[in-house]
Amino acid sequence: MAHEKQTKTKGLVAVFTGNGKGKTTAALGLAFRALGHNHPVCIIQFIKGSWKYGEMESAKKFAPLLDFHVMGRGFTWKSDDLEKDKAVALEAWEFAKRVIEENHYSMVILDELTYLPHYGMLAEEEILTVLKNKPEHLHVVITGRHASQELIDAADLVTEMIEIKHPYQSGIQAQKGFEF
Amino acid sequence: MAHEKQTKTKGLVAVFTGNGKGKTTAALGLAFRALGHNHPVCIIQFIKGSWKYGEMESAKKFAPLLDFHVMGRGFTWKSDDLEKDKAVALEAWEFAKRVIEENHYSMVILDELTYLPHYGMLAEEEILTVLKNKPEHLHVVITGRHASQELIDAADLVTEMIEIKHPYQSGIQAQKGFEF
Repeated sequence: MAHEKQTKTKGLVAVFTGNGKGKTTAALGLAFRALGHNHPVCIIQFIKGSWKYGEMESAKKFAPLLDFHVMGRGFTWKSDDLEKDKAVALEAWEFAKRVIEENHYSMVILDELTYLPHYGMLAEEEILTVLKNKPEHLHVVITGRHASQELIDAADLVTEMIEIKHPYQSGIQAQKGFEF
Repeated sequence: MAHEKQTKTKGLVAVFTGNGKGKTTAALGLAFRALGHNHPVCIIQFIKGSWKYGEMESAKKFAPLLDFHVMGRGFTWKSDDLEKDKAVALEAWEFAKRVIEENHYSMVILDELTYLPHYGMLAEEEILTVLKNKPEHLHVVITGRHASQELIDAADLVTEMIEIKHPYQSGIQAQKGFEF
């Protein structure tokens, strides 16, 4: 865990939502930008398997400034054990809350967090309370589809990524170094 | 310039457009992903000053796999010399064409390229011809507002970033390590 001195700016809450590609990659780009300033970043991934080999390898170049935590169990809609999913998701959330409260980072990215309230595994109110009470200078970035209006209201910056066209539509396979 | 062996997959054309934040950062995230596979990446920035200190510093960590070229002169709408702007933009475009044709990279990112046809500095047809004739395995990523329908038609993946909320709306200043 990185323990650099925090830069004294107001921390923002950013949300990347929508059905299009680029939510997680945009968050990654923000991490890249912060790391260039030697600001420590923590990425917590709530859906296992959503981050792939490419970015994992790149992330290693930024150690120890970048911490990367893979939580969760994968997409719940194909799960055969929703109770277990929920327990794992809540454990991930407790971890994220602790990371935010401990305030060792300049930026915390909660990747795919929106799926938790969307699938009823976590009350939206829990997230809003943590954002409201977050350390003043910490940037929090949340990604995932189905961001609620309450989350949008609580955020400083919200971009919706709209899918205009997707390569799978034209039958093109996922590409190493591009899609993963 | 990196000269690694190219991976033999079909190269995609991706476009990140729209008025929201996250277009360039999503492209950066794709670069990050490709670099993690040791795929060489070239970023060409058509609007000077749109990339900031943070990502420049991070980019250095990936040398010599990542080449970064800053072209252009800044936003044309505040220019006092449109002819000079156009000449510089066309020079940047000639450079980009050469980089694409030479095929030394796995991914070429043309950041803010869409401004050139939008401001009448470059014919859209020029871009479409280069995309049509690009090396088969090369990924090309184009960012910027106002992507034309013809460019969208030519692309495999298109995401429109819609601005739902921007921190400047609520009077918050740009943040080091976040906005730049």
